[in-house]
Amino acid sequence: MIIDCHGHYTTAPAPHDGWRDAQKAALKSGGDIDPSYPDISDDEIRESIEKNQLRLARERGADLTIFSPRASVMGHHIGDAAVSRAWTRRCNDLIARVVGLYPENFIGVAQLPQSPGVPIADSIDELKRCVNELGFVGCNLNPDPSGGHWTAPPLTDRAWYPFYEAMVELDVPAMVHVSGSCNPNFHATGAHYINADTTAFMQFLQGDLFADFPNLRFIIPHGGGAVPYHWGRYRGLADMLNRPPLRQHVMRNVYFDTCVYHQPGIDLLFKVIDIENILFGSEMVGAVRGIDPETGRYFDDTKPYIEALGLSETDKALVFEGNARRVYPRLDAQLRARGR
Amino acid sequence: MIIDCHGHYTTAPAPHDGWRDAQKAALKSGGDIDPSYPDISDDEIRESIEKNQLRLARERGADLTIFSPRASVMGHHIGDAAVSRAWTRRCNDLIARVVGLYPENFIGVAQLPQSPGVPIADSIDELKRCVNELGFVGCNLNPDPSGGHWTAPPLTDRAWYPFYEAMVELDVPAMVHVSGSCNPNFHATGAHYINADTTAFMQFLQGDLFADFPNLRFIIPHGGGAVPYHWGRYRGLADMLNRPPLRQHVMRNVYFDTCVYHQPGIDLLFKVIDIENILFGSEMVGAVRGIDPETGRYFDDTKPYIEALGLSETDKALVFEGNARRVYPRLDAQLRARGR
Repeated sequence: MIIDCHGHYTTAPAPHDGWRDAQKAALKSGGDIDPSYPDISDDEIRESIEKNQLRLARERGADLTIFSPRASVMGHHIGDAAVSRAWTRRCNDLIARVVGLYPENFIGVAQLPQSPGVPIADSIDELKRCVNELGFVGCNLNPDPSGGHWTAPPLTDRAWYPFYEAMVELDVPAMVHVSGSCNPNFHATGAHYINADTTAFMQFLQGDLFADFPNLRFIIPHGGGAVPYHWGRYRGLADMLNRPPLRQHVMRNVYFDTCVYHQPGIDLLFKVIDIENILFGSEMVGAVRGIDPETGRYFDDTKPYIEALGLSETDKALVFEGNARRVYPRLDAQLRARGR
Repeated sequence: MIIDCHGHYTTAPAPHDGWRDAQKAALKSGGDIDPSYPDISDDEIRESIEKNQLRLARERGADLTIFSPRASVMGHHIGDAAVSRAWTRRCNDLIARVVGLYPENFIGVAQLPQSPGVPIADSIDELKRCVNELGFVGCNLNPDPSGGHWTAPPLTDRAWYPFYEAMVELDVPAMVHVSGSCNPNFHATGAHYINADTTAFMQFLQGDLFADFPNLRFIIPHGGGAVPYHWGRYRGLADMLNRPPLRQHVMRNVYFDTCVYHQPGIDLLFKVIDIENILFGSEMVGAVRGIDPETGRYFDDTKPYIEALGLSETDKALVFEGNARRVYPRLDAQLRARGR
């Protein structure tokens, strides 16, 4: 079984995005920031999924996608906590509908109603609703709700602890995932995403978060940002900062996906990172949608890169399935309940 | 001949840092932010260099280091333009003394008196002084003088153009190099540096700066940040943004150094980046000072990684010497004048 740990609903039906536009207009005009939600039929959802994510997953041979709202438009920096909460509920409810229509192919991961300066504890209710009522198995945690101004405390700060306690209680992991950038310095998918990955890892290295939360688990997407390429630098920095080796200090709790869009990058990832810490992912349909002229395949079709590695069957099973089931125990439980 | 394109004076004599402390104290107390500079003897400078950079360069087999003030304490975010200008002059003058004592081993690159919100044109005079009077061959340009708040416009913004005109006129390149971070999210050498490298590259990709300045040249240090690891992503983003292929669009003007502290990272760098775009560098004595238990060598001893690649003699000559002489024509001219 092949589990893609990183898929976003980037192809939601137009009325869903229209609702967000109406909300943003209301925010400007002082109107209702939680306007009535349009009727979106099951067929509209089916079309948006079957023509895109499901078609590609089938073509590429993935069975199940861990699926969350479109990350780049979470837009936590837009409006206030009430705006973020209303939009987030709509987004998560839409994911739940996709999962309801395709329970064999998708499983939900929650967007959070984060907002700059608002305590993360305010996101716990939505996490619980998504996990307990909608059957979601994880969440996307934004380390920078300001959208590129980085005004929140580091992820190792105690300000985040109430949320971590909820994650541990529910036994769900978080993917560290920023949203769009309102800072013109940072292109969202080309700089802000990758920088956030690198930043989060270095925060974990500097701090000692996992001594306080030994069961807390994070997925750092996009192949871990710059980290595997600079693995020597990070091993050296751990040493300079008198931290234990990374394998003990960080990598019992942190996992990287395989959203790295060329063979040499995937080769490097698997060379330096232990197989137990790598989860198959494609970020599909996402950041890079074109075909690589050098291979004739989609850049984000990451499965062939992994297949070219010549991994043992055991290692392949870990990357494509086993690690995801271990990191997302609620996914494992749901699959087992269905005999998968 | 082996040229290390990336060395900082991280071991300056204590009175130099003491001057900066006095300046910062004066800034707080309302005193003179340009206090008298201590007497630092040639012997003090010799000791700080011979025990550190020169000893290591000799042990490792590098002949000449392109040498600049310690990047992490440029501290452009501290005080105002006058504070930055006074400190910057002291730092550059000290580099000039090192070069004067060891003209065969070091050549200068300038710190700039940048300051948040201050036009970059104000840095032109110091660049000209360093190049025309002190014989420097390049500069370090900080894309984020705010120290981790990223309040300046992107490097492709016309606000930077007056400085680029001066660079082109003087025929000197800039290394894109941030300083320390006053944002607790970003560890300086573990996150801020690498993020800035990635960010600058993506800005160049998004923009069309080199159409306006075909002779402008940037070195992106630390192996290009996350870029080579995500080379497929960047090739794909160039395609999605309707940009020409990276080789034409960015890589005629942008170079990466080899400050990547493990063999798999160096392997990747040389696999995906053209040999003409790679300059030998070590960032020594710098970010990571320890010995890698996996190799028994210093992490930042990057020469053996390159030697292990089995490059042709032609390619080795480019990486170790030829590319640096091409990117820094004033270095080449000085070397030729000395028959080297």
